Amino acid sequence: MITAREVIQKKRDRGTLTRQEISSFIRGYMSAQITDYQVAAWLMAVYLNGMTIDETIALTREMRDSGTVLDLSSIRGRKVDKHSTGGVGDKTSMMVAPIAAACGVTVPMITGRALGHTGGTLDKLESIAGFNAKPSPGKILQILKSTGAVIMGQTDDLAPADRRIYALRDVTSTVESIPLITASILSKKLAEGIDGLVMDVKTGSGAFMSTLDAATALSRSIVDVCRAMKTKIVVVITDMEQPLGRAIGNALEIRECIEFLKGRTSDDLETITITLAAHMIVLGGRARSIDHASKLAYEAVSKGEAARRFRQIIRAQSGDERVMDDLDLLPRAAHSRDLRARTSGFVTRCDAKLLGMASNALGAGRNRVDDSIDPAVGLYLQKKAGDRVIKGEVLCRIHWNDERRLKSSLPLIEQAYEIRPRPARRRPLIHGILKG
Amino acid sequence: MITAREVIQKKRDRGTLTRQEISSFIRGYMSAQITDYQVAAWLMAVYLNGMTIDETIALTREMRDSGTVLDLSSIRGRKVDKHSTGGVGDKTSMMVAPIAAACGVTVPMITGRALGHTGGTLDKLESIAGFNAKPSPGKILQILKSTGAVIMGQTDDLAPADRRIYALRDVTSTVESIPLITASILSKKLAEGIDGLVMDVKTGSGAFMSTLDAATALSRSIVDVCRAMKTKIVVVITDMEQPLGRAIGNALEIRECIEFLKGRTSDDLETITITLAAHMIVLGGRARSIDHASKLAYEAVSKGEAARRFRQIIRAQSGDERVMDDLDLLPRAAHSRDLRARTSGFVTRCDAKLLGMASNALGAGRNRVDDSIDPAVGLYLQKKAGDRVIKGEVLCRIHWNDERRLKSSLPLIEQAYEIRPRPARRRPLIHGILKG
Repeated sequence: MITAREVIQKKRDRGTLTRQEISSFIRGYMSAQITDYQVAAWLMAVYLNGMTIDETIALTREMRDSGTVLDLSSIRGRKVDKHSTGGVGDKTSMMVAPIAAACGVTVPMITGRALGHTGGTLDKLESIAGFNAKPSPGKILQILKSTGAVIMGQTDDLAPADRRIYALRDVTSTVESIPLITASILSKKLAEGIDGLVMDVKTGSGAFMSTLDAATALSRSIVDVCRAMKTKIVVVITDMEQPLGRAIGNALEIRECIEFLKGRTSDDLETITITLAAHMIVLGGRARSIDHASKLAYEAVSKGEAARRFRQIIRAQSGDERVMDDLDLLPRAAHSRDLRARTSGFVTRCDAKLLGMASNALGAGRNRVDDSIDPAVGLYLQKKAGDRVIKGEVLCRIHWNDERRLKSSLPLIEQAYEIRPRPARRRPLIHGILKG
Repeated sequence: MITAREVIQKKRDRGTLTRQEISSFIRGYMSAQITDYQVAAWLMAVYLNGMTIDETIALTREMRDSGTVLDLSSIRGRKVDKHSTGGVGDKTSMMVAPIAAACGVTVPMITGRALGHTGGTLDKLESIAGFNAKPSPGKILQILKSTGAVIMGQTDDLAPADRRIYALRDVTSTVESIPLITASILSKKLAEGIDGLVMDVKTGSGAFMSTLDAATALSRSIVDVCRAMKTKIVVVITDMEQPLGRAIGNALEIRECIEFLKGRTSDDLETITITLAAHMIVLGGRARSIDHASKLAYEAVSKGEAARRFRQIIRAQSGDERVMDDLDLLPRAAHSRDLRARTSGFVTRCDAKLLGMASNALGAGRNRVDDSIDPAVGLYLQKKAGDRVIKGEVLCRIHWNDERRLKSSLPLIEQAYEIRPRPARRRPLIHGILKG
């Protein structure tokens, strides 16, 4: 038996750990024979010296198997989930789930909460009165069978090793490591008992992987591990230089989702949502080609089936479904204030990270996992990159409740916008697609 | 204020930490605001990315200042200590302290215990009945004034940051790092309130730094930090390819020390002991040249003054001084067994590490800090590298108490000796001397 010290030392000295060594290290940690500080030292060695794909596969498998792996075999057809590396204004999960479900795909979606400048799907959904993000295991199956989709938080027994390791990475500056990110994401996703996964890997200022190179490396790693784990995978690398859609903030984003599902769309949001949903539909075996799947996705929205599914999901998870008919039932901030253009020209920057930080400063997000959030506050972008703007026009509407918070968010919003006499080169919305 | 995460991140990204950043990190750790796992991740980043001399100086200073710094200003003259990086059969501390004291130097020596294949001065001294390795602070001054030397263990209030960090390094495979070793050694030594230090950096199979390159790098680091901390330093790089002297094991080494101080010497032991003591005498201001100091050191031995000092030290620290006259008062193993040469020729290898491990296997050392030791067991080397040997002659006498332990040590001893028809090239005893 190799000891914890030897495993740390091997990785420290750029060695390649065997599947068994990784397994005994993670199991030792979960059974309290290996300490937090030993794992912390090992994480830093992994961060600095990397891991091979075989090591990443072994780590993913071990973390997945540290808890329950959902058994969805009683549900017919393919189960497909969609996951994003996190962005600003990214509300696609709440739209692709009902769209794919409307097209016959089963979507057991496990999603997360806001942290740092990025938002969280669960927080957004909880701005709908009564919404329950933690249905019981029996209830999950029932919801999946009746509505085709469930959107829920990670349960305690799903990949518990990931939860402990992630908490440790967070405080030891070992988060931004491609093998560790890969294992963290996929251990949870593969514990859902899915047949296929569509990953939205974001790149740009508001993304975790700000450069395209880093996003591509993470995408390759995800594809390789999924392939080894016999799970179909499509990775779509999408842009996060500016926020997705126009709303940033919890209730504001739900509002934008419902408007979208009812036919009022924002260009970039539509492109990304339909692309992701179409790949889910193909992985779910409901269309042969991506073109056909896109057509089905569009129809699900235009015929109102996606909106009906979203209503069913809200109802099944105890939320107040009347928001679908009356958006004013969503929490609203007490005040609003407009930020106006100081010059005329073109918006050349509408920085996702700064706007995410601004929304966070207003109270929409969290700096620490135990912070509470304000569901009502946030931003609505009237102008985005590429838009023409005349001096005095509204760039962005700020929905706020606390004046001190407004004051700390304003300079961030002002910095986020740049107006120049000529338009800047447009960044692609989709940078690449990888399949496994 | 920089956070723990930021300090870890900066070192992770090969940045150079400021004195203030290192200070707030170590203070945060000692005040429990920074956790073990954060320090563990940081230690691995330091291990892999290194530290500049300025960072090493800052870390040493901070660790020294984490506890009491002894004030020996009430004692006249220069205070000089000697420290070794640890070896097998290395009993020089117990000889250089009385020799230097006999020559008028004050020696406030703080020393350690056996761990792994290396022995510990305190364990050796405790094989003298009654020896007290932890005199009270008041008593320390009194002993120093009356005998000129004290040999004691690290107290809880001396560089406590080093103790905690060392324990963490031990279990996180971050021990063998030159800046961390430098800071660990010097934080304790500089807390002794000394004016000068003679460091014995060992190199060879039985040493912590097995290659001369590593030993030289550590030596340079030690010299640079001492220079910055205004403490006179001489580093002697000595050989640890084979054990020093002939005895390995606690009481056996005390026996060899007493014999040495009474005039019966083993060549290599004499060379190293006199060299180290002479440098202490020069640093202590009791001789101008190393030649003169060597002469004084030899005289202290030959005239019996060093032996008298050692007797005084034993008495002052409550040990049974009668061992000086009757070596049979030392613990003796119940059994002994001789390992004999299977062929005739020359001893070409007498491996320090394997013999250290063998002595440890007999019970003389510790694998874990809380193991207990057997003071009586050990090895006495009749033959060492370079010696001519005839088939059937005794290579080594094994002093043992437990048959199971004897069995596990025998193959190590057999492997440690190599006999060839021709002698091997002799390694130098002293590889280099650096001064600061």
